[in-house]
Amino acid sequence: MFVFLNGRFVPEEEATISIHDRGFLYGDGLFETLRVYAGAPFLWEAHIQRFEHGCRLLGIQSPLSGGELRCVLGELLRRNGLREAVVRLTLTRGRGLRGYSPAGANHPTLLIVCYVPRQQPATYRVILSKIRGPEADPLGELKHLNKLHQVLARAEADAHGADEALLLNSCGEVTEGTATNVFCVRGGAVLTPGSRGILPGTTRAHVLRVCQRRGVRALEGAIRAEELFAMDGVFVTSSVAEIKEVSNLDGRALARSPLVHELQGAYRSG
Amino acid sequence: MFVFLNGRFVPEEEATISIHDRGFLYGDGLFETLRVYAGAPFLWEAHIQRFEHGCRLLGIQSPLSGGELRCVLGELLRRNGLREAVVRLTLTRGRGLRGYSPAGANHPTLLIVCYVPRQQPATYRVILSKIRGPEADPLGELKHLNKLHQVLARAEADAHGADEALLLNSCGEVTEGTATNVFCVRGGAVLTPGSRGILPGTTRAHVLRVCQRRGVRALEGAIRAEELFAMDGVFVTSSVAEIKEVSNLDGRALARSPLVHELQGAYRSG
Repeated sequence: MFVFLNGRFVPEEEATISIHDRGFLYGDGLFETLRVYAGAPFLWEAHIQRFEHGCRLLGIQSPLSGGELRCVLGELLRRNGLREAVVRLTLTRGRGLRGYSPAGANHPTLLIVCYVPRQQPATYRVILSKIRGPEADPLGELKHLNKLHQVLARAEADAHGADEALLLNSCGEVTEGTATNVFCVRGGAVLTPGSRGILPGTTRAHVLRVCQRRGVRALEGAIRAEELFAMDGVFVTSSVAEIKEVSNLDGRALARSPLVHELQGAYRSG
Repeated sequence: MFVFLNGRFVPEEEATISIHDRGFLYGDGLFETLRVYAGAPFLWEAHIQRFEHGCRLLGIQSPLSGGELRCVLGELLRRNGLREAVVRLTLTRGRGLRGYSPAGANHPTLLIVCYVPRQQPATYRVILSKIRGPEADPLGELKHLNKLHQVLARAEADAHGADEALLLNSCGEVTEGTATNVFCVRGGAVLTPGSRGILPGTTRAHVLRVCQRRGVRALEGAIRAEELFAMDGVFVTSSVAEIKEVSNLDGRALARSPLVHELQGAYRSG
Protein backbone atom coordinates (compact mmCIF):
# COMPACT_ATOMS: atom_id res chain seq x y z
CA MET A 1 0.00 0.00 0.00
CA PHE A 2 1.19 3.53 -0.79
CA VAL A 3 0.68 6.45 1.53
CA PHE A 4 1.09 10.15 0.83
CA LEU A 5 3.61 11.76 3.19
CA ASN A 6 4.92 15.30 2.92
CA GLY A 7 4.50 15.66 -0.80
CA ARG A 8 5.45 12.15 -1.90
CA PHE A 9 3.73 8.85 -2.56
CA VAL A 10 5.76 6.30 -0.60
CA PRO A 11 5.35 2.61 0.21
CA GLU A 12 3.73 2.31 3.63
CA GLU A 13 6.71 0.43 5.13
CA GLU A 14 9.07 3.27 4.20
CA ALA A 15 6.84 6.02 5.58
CA THR A 16 7.99 7.17 9.00
CA ILE A 17 7.63 10.20 11.23
CA SER A 18 10.37 12.17 12.95
CA ILE A 19 10.81 11.51 16.67
CA HIS A 20 10.60 15.32 16.99
CA ASP A 21 7.23 15.58 15.27
CA ARG A 22 4.89 17.60 17.49
CA GLY A 23 2.01 15.32 16.58
CA PHE A 24 3.89 12.50 18.28
CA LEU A 25 5.22 14.58 21.18
CA TYR A 26 2.14 16.65 22.07
CA GLY A 27 -0.78 15.64 19.86
CA ASP A 28 -0.25 19.00 18.15
CA GLY A 29 -2.33 18.45 15.03
CA LEU A 30 -5.59 17.44 13.41
CA PHE A 31 -7.10 14.59 11.46
CA GLU A 32 -10.07 13.59 9.36
CA THR A 33 -11.37 10.10 8.68
CA LEU A 34 -13.61 9.64 5.69
CA ARG A 35 -15.10 7.00 3.49
CA VAL A 36 -14.58 6.43 -0.21
CA TYR A 37 -17.36 4.70 -2.18
CA ALA A 38 -16.80 3.67 -5.81
CA GLY A 39 -13.71 5.87 -5.97
CA ALA A 40 -15.46 9.01 -4.68
CA PRO A 41 -14.80 10.46 -1.21
CA PHE A 42 -18.12 10.82 0.60
CA LEU A 43 -19.00 14.21 2.17
CA TRP A 44 -15.62 15.53 1.04
CA GLU A 45 -16.54 19.22 1.28
CA ALA A 46 -17.77 18.85 4.86
CA HIS A 47 -14.57 17.08 5.92
CA ILE A 48 -12.36 19.68 4.27
CA GLN A 49 -14.32 22.56 5.76
CA ARG A 50 -13.88 21.11 9.26
CA PHE A 51 -10.21 20.42 8.55
CA GLU A 52 -9.56 23.96 7.33
CA HIS A 53 -11.46 25.41 10.32
CA GLY A 54 -9.20 23.36 12.63
CA CYS A 55 -6.10 24.56 10.77
CA ARG A 56 -7.13 28.16 11.36
CA LEU A 57 -7.83 27.58 15.07
CA LEU A 58 -4.51 25.82 15.65
CA GLY A 59 -2.53 28.16 13.41
CA ILE A 60 -1.24 25.33 11.23
CA GLN A 61 -1.08 26.01 7.52
CA SER A 62 -1.90 22.97 5.41
CA PRO A 63 0.67 22.63 2.64
CA LEU A 64 -2.14 21.66 0.26
CA SER A 65 -5.47 23.29 -0.46
CA GLY A 66 -8.73 21.34 -0.36
CA GLY A 67 -8.65 20.96 -4.14
CA GLU A 68 -5.05 19.73 -4.07
CA LEU A 69 -5.85 17.27 -1.30
CA ARG A 70 -8.74 15.93 -3.36
CA CYS A 71 -6.45 15.47 -6.33
CA VAL A 72 -3.74 13.74 -4.25
CA LEU A 73 -6.32 11.44 -2.68
CA GLY A 74 -7.56 10.45 -6.13
CA GLU A 75 -4.03 9.54 -7.19
CA LEU A 76 -3.39 7.65 -3.94
CA LEU A 77 -6.54 5.56 -4.42
CA ARG A 78 -5.50 4.87 -8.01
CA ARG A 79 -2.00 3.75 -7.01
CA ASN A 80 -3.45 1.47 -4.37
CA GLY A 81 -6.11 0.11 -6.72
CA LEU A 82 -8.81 0.99 -4.18
CA ARG A 83 -12.38 1.98 -5.04
CA GLU A 84 -13.70 1.35 -1.52
CA ALA A 85 -11.59 2.77 1.31
CA VAL A 86 -11.41 4.37 4.69
CA VAL A 87 -9.05 7.35 4.46
CA ARG A 88 -7.27 9.13 7.27
CA LEU A 89 -5.77 12.53 6.63
CA THR A 90 -3.42 13.74 9.39
CA LEU A 91 -1.80 17.16 9.68
CA THR A 92 0.61 18.05 12.47
CA ARG A 93 2.69 21.12 13.22
CA GLY A 94 5.79 19.13 12.25
CA ARG A 95 9.17 19.33 13.93
CA GLY A 96 9.97 21.97 16.47
CA LEU A 97 12.21 22.70 19.41
CA ARG A 98 11.68 20.81 22.68
CA GLY A 99 8.80 22.25 24.70
CA TYR A 100 5.21 23.33 24.13
CA SER A 101 6.01 26.51 22.23
CA PRO A 102 5.16 26.06 18.54
CA ALA A 103 7.69 28.77 17.63
CA GLY A 104 9.83 27.74 14.67
CA ALA A 105 7.68 24.73 13.75
CA ASN A 106 6.86 25.89 10.25
CA HIS A 107 6.93 22.69 8.23
CA PRO A 108 3.73 20.76 8.93
CA THR A 109 3.58 17.01 8.48
CA LEU A 110 0.82 15.91 6.10
CA LEU A 111 -0.04 12.23 5.90
CA ILE A 112 -2.80 10.46 3.97
CA VAL A 113 -3.34 6.75 4.54
CA CYS A 114 -5.92 4.47 2.92
CA TYR A 115 -7.33 1.41 4.65
CA VAL A 116 -9.41 -1.40 3.23
CA PRO A 117 -12.78 -1.10 5.04
CA ARG A 118 -13.20 -3.74 7.73
CA GLN A 119 -16.31 -5.84 8.03
CA GLN A 120 -18.72 -4.09 10.39
CA PRO A 121 -21.26 -5.74 12.69
CA ALA A 122 -24.84 -5.30 11.43
CA THR A 123 -25.86 -3.60 14.67
CA TYR A 124 -23.80 -2.26 17.56
CA ARG A 125 -23.55 -3.34 21.14
CA VAL A 126 -22.85 -0.18 23.13
CA ILE A 127 -21.97 0.72 26.71
CA LEU A 128 -22.28 3.88 28.75
CA SER A 129 -18.68 4.76 29.58
CA LYS A 130 -17.67 5.39 33.18
CA ILE A 131 -15.05 7.79 31.86
CA ARG A 132 -16.16 11.39 32.03
CA GLY A 133 -14.71 13.49 29.27
CA PRO A 134 -13.52 16.98 30.12
CA GLU A 135 -16.34 19.48 30.55
CA ALA A 136 -16.61 22.74 28.64
CA ASP A 137 -13.50 21.89 26.69
CA PRO A 138 -12.68 24.77 24.35
CA LEU A 139 -11.05 22.26 22.00
CA GLY A 140 -13.98 19.84 22.07
CA GLU A 141 -15.16 20.95 18.63
CA LEU A 142 -11.82 20.25 16.97
CA LYS A 143 -10.87 16.90 15.47
CA HIS A 144 -7.42 17.07 17.02
CA LEU A 145 -4.94 14.37 17.94
CA ASN A 146 -5.65 14.43 21.70
CA LYS A 147 -7.82 11.34 21.90
CA LEU A 148 -6.83 9.59 25.10
CA HIS A 149 -10.32 9.84 26.64
CA GLN A 150 -11.70 8.19 23.52
CA VAL A 151 -9.02 5.47 23.64
CA LEU A 152 -9.78 4.67 27.28
CA ALA A 153 -13.54 4.67 26.77
CA ARG A 154 -13.14 2.43 23.74
CA ALA A 155 -10.93 0.06 25.77
CA GLU A 156 -13.77 -0.05 28.31
CA ALA A 157 -16.16 -1.02 25.48
CA ASP A 158 -13.72 -3.72 24.32
CA ALA A 159 -13.62 -5.14 27.84
CA HIS A 160 -17.42 -5.52 27.72
CA GLY A 161 -17.40 -7.02 24.23
CA ALA A 162 -19.08 -3.86 22.92
CA ASP A 163 -18.54 -1.96 19.69
CA GLU A 164 -18.76 1.57 21.02
CA ALA A 165 -18.90 3.55 24.27
CA LEU A 166 -21.05 6.63 24.86
CA LEU A 167 -19.59 9.47 26.88
CA LEU A 168 -21.76 11.33 29.39
CA ASN A 169 -21.29 14.78 30.85
CA SER A 170 -21.36 15.42 34.60
CA CYS A 171 -25.15 15.96 34.45
CA GLY A 172 -25.58 12.40 33.17
CA GLU A 173 -26.48 13.54 29.66
CA VAL A 174 -25.17 11.71 26.62
CA THR A 175 -22.71 13.79 24.59
CA GLU A 176 -21.21 11.55 21.92
CA GLY A 177 -19.64 8.18 21.30
CA THR A 178 -15.87 7.76 21.14
CA ALA A 179 -15.98 7.80 17.33
CA THR A 180 -19.67 8.42 16.64
CA ASN A 181 -22.57 10.76 17.27
CA VAL A 182 -25.73 9.47 18.91
CA PHE A 183 -29.33 9.68 17.73
CA CYS A 184 -32.63 8.42 19.14
CA VAL A 185 -36.02 7.82 17.61
CA ARG A 186 -39.03 8.90 19.65
CA GLY A 187 -42.56 9.18 18.37
CA GLY A 188 -41.51 9.29 14.74
CA ALA A 189 -39.00 12.09 15.33
CA VAL A 190 -35.22 11.90 15.56
CA LEU A 191 -33.40 13.43 18.51
CA THR A 192 -29.67 14.04 18.95
CA PRO A 193 -27.63 15.86 21.61
CA GLY A 194 -26.95 19.53 20.81
CA SER A 195 -23.66 20.30 19.11
CA ARG A 196 -22.17 22.52 21.82
CA GLY A 197 -18.88 21.09 23.07
CA ILE A 198 -19.05 17.94 20.97
CA LEU A 199 -17.20 17.16 17.80
CA PRO A 200 -19.41 18.38 14.93
CA GLY A 201 -19.75 15.13 13.04
CA THR A 202 -19.91 15.36 9.26
CA THR A 203 -22.14 12.28 9.25
CA ARG A 204 -24.30 13.77 12.03
CA ALA A 205 -24.92 16.87 9.88
CA HIS A 206 -25.59 14.67 6.86
CA VAL A 207 -28.14 12.55 8.75
CA LEU A 208 -29.91 15.72 9.95
CA ARG A 209 -30.12 16.86 6.31
CA VAL A 210 -31.41 13.44 5.20
CA CYS A 211 -34.13 13.68 7.87
CA GLN A 212 -35.08 17.15 6.70
CA ARG A 213 -35.31 16.09 3.05
CA ARG A 214 -37.49 13.13 3.95
CA GLY A 215 -39.77 15.18 6.16
CA VAL A 216 -38.62 13.43 9.35
CA ARG A 217 -38.68 15.82 12.29
CA ALA A 218 -35.16 16.11 13.77
CA LEU A 219 -34.46 17.86 17.07
CA GLU A 220 -31.33 18.70 18.98
CA GLY A 221 -31.54 18.58 22.75
CA ALA A 222 -30.35 17.03 25.98
CA ILE A 223 -30.77 13.26 26.33
CA ARG A 224 -30.26 11.69 29.72
CA ALA A 225 -28.50 8.34 29.60
CA GLU A 226 -31.37 6.45 31.25
CA GLU A 227 -33.82 7.84 28.68
CA LEU A 228 -32.05 5.83 25.97
CA PHE A 229 -33.62 2.64 27.31
CA ALA A 230 -37.13 4.02 26.72
CA MET A 231 -36.57 5.27 23.16
CA ASP A 232 -38.18 3.68 20.09
CA GLY A 233 -34.70 3.24 18.64
CA VAL A 234 -31.11 4.39 19.11
CA PHE A 235 -28.42 4.68 16.46
CA VAL A 236 -24.90 6.01 16.13
CA THR A 237 -23.30 7.61 13.11
CA SER A 238 -19.83 8.21 11.71
CA SER A 239 -18.04 8.12 8.37
CA VAL A 240 -16.87 4.59 9.10
CA ALA A 241 -19.91 3.24 10.99
CA GLU A 242 -22.33 5.09 8.67
CA ILE A 243 -25.70 4.57 10.45
CA LYS A 244 -25.55 1.72 12.95
CA GLU A 245 -28.52 0.71 15.02
CA VAL A 246 -27.79 0.10 18.71
CA SER A 247 -29.32 -3.27 19.48
CA ASN A 248 -27.95 -3.53 22.99
CA LEU A 249 -27.01 -0.92 25.59
CA ASP A 250 -25.17 -1.93 28.76
CA GLY A 251 -26.32 -5.50 28.17
CA ARG A 252 -30.03 -4.61 27.73
CA ALA A 253 -31.78 -5.05 24.41
CA LEU A 254 -33.17 -1.81 22.97
CA ALA A 255 -36.30 -1.25 20.92
CA ARG A 256 -35.73 -1.24 17.16
CA SER A 257 -37.33 1.33 14.90
CA PRO A 258 -38.08 0.94 11.17
CA LEU A 259 -37.10 4.60 10.79
CA VAL A 260 -33.46 3.63 11.32
CA HIS A 261 -33.61 1.27 8.35
CA GLU A 262 -35.29 3.96 6.27
CA LEU A 263 -32.44 6.38 7.06
CA GLN A 264 -29.84 3.70 6.32
CA GLY A 265 -31.44 3.18 2.93
CA ALA A 266 -31.30 6.90 2.18
CA TYR A 267 -27.80 7.41 3.60
CA ARG A 268 -25.70 7.39 0.45
CA SER A 269 -28.20 8.91 -1.91
CA GLY A 270 -28.96 11.64 0.65
CA MET B 1 23.43 12.72 19.16
CA PHE B 2 22.26 9.20 19.95
CA VAL B 3 18.75 8.41 21.11
CA PHE B 4 17.40 5.21 22.62
CA LEU B 5 14.51 3.81 20.59
CA ASN B 6 12.86 0.44 21.15
CA GLY B 7 15.85 -1.28 22.66
CA ARG B 8 18.60 0.25 20.53
CA PHE B 9 20.93 3.23 20.68
CA VAL B 10 20.56 4.89 17.27
CA PRO B 11 21.80 8.12 15.72
CA GLU B 12 19.07 10.75 16.07
CA GLU B 13 18.71 11.24 12.29
CA GLU B 14 17.99 7.52 11.82
CA ALA B 15 15.41 7.32 14.60
CA THR B 16 11.88 7.45 13.27
CA ILE B 17 8.39 6.49 14.37
CA SER B 18 5.83 4.41 12.49
CA ILE B 19 3.00 6.35 10.86
CA HIS B 20 0.74 3.85 12.67
CA ASP B 21 2.13 4.64 16.12
CA ARG B 22 -0.77 5.42 18.45
CA GLY B 23 1.26 8.14 20.11
CA PHE B 24 1.25 9.96 16.78
CA LEU B 25 -2.34 9.08 15.85
CA TYR B 26 -4.12 9.61 19.19
CA GLY B 27 -1.64 10.86 21.79
CA ASP B 28 -1.96 7.39 23.31
CA GLY B 29 1.03 7.47 25.64
CA LEU B 30 3.01 9.16 28.38
CA PHE B 31 6.18 11.12 28.86
CA GLU B 32 8.55 12.43 31.50
CA THR B 33 10.97 15.33 31.19
CA LEU B 34 13.81 15.46 33.66
CA ARG B 35 17.10 17.17 34.31
CA VAL B 36 20.54 15.63 34.57
CA TYR B 37 23.19 17.43 36.66
CA ALA B 38 26.80 16.24 36.65
CA GLY B 39 25.73 12.97 35.07
CA ALA B 40 23.02 12.21 37.66
CA PRO B 41 19.28 12.38 36.86
CA PHE B 42 17.62 14.68 39.39
CA LEU B 43 14.52 13.41 41.27
CA TRP B 44 14.74 10.17 39.28
CA GLU B 45 12.63 8.12 41.67
CA ALA B 46 9.79 10.64 41.62
CA HIS B 47 9.75 10.72 37.82
CA ILE B 48 9.76 6.96 37.54
CA GLN B 49 7.01 6.57 40.12
CA ARG B 50 4.79 8.99 38.19
CA PHE B 51 5.67 7.24 34.93
CA GLU B 52 4.86 3.79 36.32
CA HIS B 53 1.60 5.09 37.80
CA GLY B 54 0.66 6.42 34.35
CA CYS B 55 1.54 3.10 32.73
CA ARG B 56 -0.83 1.31 35.10
CA LEU B 57 -3.67 3.77 34.46
CA LEU B 58 -3.30 3.57 30.68
CA GLY B 59 -2.65 -0.16 30.65
CA ILE B 60 0.65 0.20 28.81
CA GLN B 61 3.47 -2.05 29.96
CA SER B 62 6.86 -0.39 29.82
CA PRO B 63 9.36 -2.75 28.18
CA LEU B 64 11.95 -1.66 30.76
CA SER B 65 11.78 -1.42 34.54
CA GLY B 66 12.76 1.73 36.39
CA GLY B 67 16.18 0.26 37.12
CA GLU B 68 16.70 -0.71 33.50
CA LEU B 69 15.64 2.74 32.34
CA ARG B 70 18.15 4.30 34.73
CA CYS B 71 20.86 2.08 33.32
CA VAL B 72 19.96 2.86 29.69
CA LEU B 73 19.88 6.57 30.44
CA GLY B 74 23.37 6.37 31.95
CA GLU B 75 24.68 4.70 28.80
CA LEU B 76 22.88 7.20 26.55
CA LEU B 77 24.43 10.14 28.41
CA ARG B 78 27.84 8.47 28.14
CA ARG B 79 27.52 7.89 24.39
CA ASN B 80 26.47 11.49 23.91
CA GLY B 81 29.23 12.82 26.15
CA LEU B 82 26.66 14.73 28.21
CA ARG B 83 26.93 15.50 31.93
CA GLU B 84 24.29 18.23 31.84
CA ALA B 85 21.10 17.38 29.97
CA VAL B 86 17.36 17.66 29.66
CA VAL B 87 15.97 14.17 29.06
CA ARG B 88 12.62 13.25 27.61
CA LEU B 89 11.35 9.71 28.03
CA THR B 90 8.32 8.86 25.87
CA LEU B 91 6.25 5.69 25.98
CA THR B 92 3.36 5.05 23.60
CA ARG B 93 1.08 2.09 23.03
CA GLY B 94 2.90 1.48 19.74
CA ARG B 95 1.30 0.32 16.52
CA GLY B 96 -2.28 -0.86 16.37
CA LEU B 97 -5.21 -1.21 14.03
CA ARG B 98 -7.00 1.91 12.78
CA GLY B 99 -9.43 3.29 15.35
CA TYR B 100 -9.43 4.12 19.06
CA SER B 101 -9.50 0.55 20.30
CA PRO B 102 -6.10 -0.35 21.79
CA ALA B 103 -6.78 -4.04 21.11
CA GLY B 104 -3.78 -5.75 19.60
CA ALA B 105 -1.36 -2.89 20.28
CA ASN B 106 1.04 -4.88 22.42
CA HIS B 107 4.43 -3.52 21.42
CA PRO B 108 4.90 -0.15 23.10
CA THR B 109 7.25 2.44 21.63
CA LEU B 110 9.91 3.60 24.09
CA LEU B 111 12.03 6.60 23.21
CA ILE B 112 14.65 8.44 25.26
CA VAL B 113 16.11 11.66 23.89
CA CYS B 114 18.74 13.92 25.48
CA TYR B 115 18.87 17.65 24.84
CA VAL B 116 21.60 20.13 25.71
CA PRO B 117 19.95 22.49 28.24
CA ARG B 118 19.04 25.82 26.69
CA GLN B 119 19.97 29.12 28.35
CA GLN B 120 17.08 30.19 30.57
CA PRO B 121 16.02 33.75 31.37
CA ALA B 122 16.93 34.76 34.94
CA THR B 123 13.30 35.52 35.75
CA TYR B 124 10.10 34.79 33.84
CA ARG B 125 7.60 37.06 32.22
CA VAL B 126 4.24 35.32 32.55
CA ILE B 127 0.70 35.84 31.27
CA LEU B 128 -2.68 34.64 32.45
CA SER B 129 -3.92 32.49 29.57
CA LYS B 130 -7.33 33.15 28.06
CA ILE B 131 -7.51 29.45 27.26
CA ARG B 132 -9.50 27.50 29.82
CA GLY B 133 -8.28 23.98 30.26
CA PRO B 134 -10.85 21.22 30.61
CA GLU B 135 -12.49 21.09 34.03
CA ALA B 136 -12.54 18.02 36.22
CA ASP B 137 -10.48 16.12 33.70
CA PRO B 138 -10.02 12.54 34.90
CA LEU B 139 -6.73 12.44 33.00
CA GLY B 140 -5.45 15.75 34.38
CA GLU B 141 -3.10 13.99 36.78
CA LEU B 142 -1.39 11.99 34.03
CA LYS B 143 1.62 13.24 32.11
CA HIS B 144 0.15 12.03 28.82
CA LEU B 145 0.74 13.10 25.25
CA ASN B 146 -2.50 15.13 24.90
CA LYS B 147 -1.02 18.57 25.28
CA LEU B 148 -2.84 20.77 22.83
CA HIS B 149 -4.23 23.12 25.50
CA GLN B 150 -0.69 23.62 26.74
CA VAL B 151 0.59 24.23 23.20
CA LEU B 152 -2.07 26.86 22.52
CA ALA B 153 -1.58 28.59 25.88
CA ARG B 154 2.17 28.64 25.30
CA ALA B 155 1.64 30.11 21.81
CA GLU B 156 -0.42 32.83 23.51
CA ALA B 157 2.55 33.50 25.86
CA ASP B 158 4.90 33.64 22.86
CA ALA B 159 2.63 36.20 21.20
CA HIS B 160 3.01 38.40 24.30
CA GLY B 161 6.77 37.90 24.51
CA ALA B 162 6.27 35.91 27.72
CA ASP B 163 8.04 32.78 28.97
CA GLU B 164 5.04 30.96 30.42
CA ALA B 165 1.25 31.09 30.59
CA LEU B 166 -0.83 30.26 33.65
CA LEU B 167 -4.07 28.35 33.19
CA LEU B 168 -7.13 29.27 35.23
CA ASN B 169 -10.19 27.22 36.04
CA SER B 170 -13.72 28.48 35.41
CA CYS B 171 -13.78 30.01 38.92
CA GLY B 172 -10.83 32.22 38.00
CA GLU B 173 -8.42 30.28 40.19
CA VAL B 174 -4.89 29.54 39.05
CA THR B 175 -4.29 25.85 38.43
CA GLU B 176 -0.88 25.45 36.82
CA GLY B 177 1.38 26.79 34.10
CA THR B 178 1.66 25.05 30.74
CA ALA B 179 4.89 23.34 31.83
CA THR B 180 5.21 24.50 35.44
CA ASN B 181 3.53 24.63 38.81
CA VAL B 182 2.86 27.95 40.49
CA PHE B 183 3.83 29.14 43.98
CA CYS B 184 3.34 32.43 45.83
CA VAL B 185 5.02 33.95 48.85
CA ARG B 186 2.78 35.68 51.37
CA GLY B 187 3.79 36.76 54.86
CA GLY B 188 6.83 34.47 54.94
CA ALA B 189 4.81 31.41 53.92
CA VAL B 190 4.64 29.67 50.58
CA LEU B 191 1.28 28.94 48.94
CA THR B 192 0.51 26.74 45.92
CA PRO B 193 -2.74 25.55 44.31
CA GLY B 194 -4.00 22.20 45.62
CA SER B 195 -2.99 19.16 43.62
CA ARG B 196 -6.48 18.00 42.65
CA GLY B 197 -6.87 17.85 38.88
CA ILE B 198 -3.44 19.28 38.12
CA LEU B 199 -0.37 17.43 37.02
CA PRO B 200 1.48 16.41 40.21
CA GLY B 201 4.81 18.08 39.49
CA THR B 202 7.91 16.29 40.73
CA THR B 203 9.56 19.67 41.24
CA ARG B 204 6.45 20.98 43.01
CA ALA B 205 6.68 18.10 45.50
CA HIS B 206 10.42 18.66 45.88
CA VAL B 207 9.96 22.38 46.60
CA LEU B 208 7.32 21.57 49.23
CA ARG B 209 9.84 19.22 50.88
CA VAL B 210 12.58 21.86 50.70
CA CYS B 211 10.25 24.32 52.44
CA GLN B 212 9.46 21.79 55.13
CA ARG B 213 13.13 21.04 55.80
CA ARG B 214 13.96 24.71 56.07
CA GLY B 215 11.05 25.46 58.37
CA VAL B 216 9.20 27.54 55.76
CA ARG B 217 5.45 27.18 56.15
CA ALA B 218 3.96 25.80 52.90
CA LEU B 219 0.23 25.66 52.24
CA GLU B 220 -1.91 24.27 49.46
CA GLY B 221 -5.06 26.18 48.59
CA ALA B 222 -7.03 28.14 46.04
CA ILE B 223 -5.35 31.23 44.59
CA ARG B 224 -7.44 33.62 42.55
CA ALA B 225 -5.61 35.07 39.54
CA GLU B 226 -5.98 38.68 40.70
CA GLU B 227 -4.47 37.80 44.10
CA LEU B 228 -1.14 37.09 42.37
CA PHE B 229 -0.58 40.83 41.91
CA ALA B 230 -0.72 41.40 45.68
CA MET B 231 1.64 38.60 46.71
CA ASP B 232 5.12 39.20 48.16
CA GLY B 233 6.52 37.02 45.38
CA VAL B 234 5.45 34.53 42.72
CA PHE B 235 7.49 31.71 41.24
CA VAL B 236 7.02 28.76 38.94
CA THR B 237 8.72 25.38 39.08
CA SER B 238 9.55 22.50 36.78
CA SER B 239 12.41 20.13 36.07
CA VAL B 240 13.61 22.39 33.27
CA ALA B 241 12.76 25.80 34.74
CA GLU B 242 13.81 24.68 38.26
CA ILE B 243 12.62 27.62 40.43
CA LYS B 244 11.98 30.74 38.37
CA GLU B 245 10.80 33.96 39.90
CA VAL B 246 7.97 35.68 38.01
CA SER B 247 9.10 39.28 37.58
CA ASN B 248 6.21 40.34 35.40
CA LEU B 249 2.62 39.15 35.10
CA ASP B 250 0.40 40.35 32.26
CA GLY B 251 2.80 43.27 31.77
CA ARG B 252 2.78 44.37 35.45
CA ALA B 253 5.88 44.10 37.61
CA LEU B 254 5.43 41.82 40.63
CA ALA B 255 6.94 42.14 44.10
CA ARG B 256 10.13 40.13 44.58
CA SER B 257 10.75 38.08 47.70
CA PRO B 258 14.15 37.08 49.12
CA LEU B 259 12.55 33.76 50.06
CA VAL B 260 12.53 32.77 46.38
CA HIS B 261 16.29 33.20 46.22
CA GLU B 262 16.70 31.20 49.41
CA LEU B 263 14.71 28.32 47.88
CA GLN B 264 16.68 28.55 44.63
CA GLY B 265 19.89 28.24 46.65
CA ALA B 266 18.58 25.14 48.41
CA TYR B 267 17.03 23.57 45.30
CA ARG B 268 19.69 21.08 44.32
CA SER B 269 20.94 20.21 47.76
CA GLY B 270 17.35 19.85 49.02
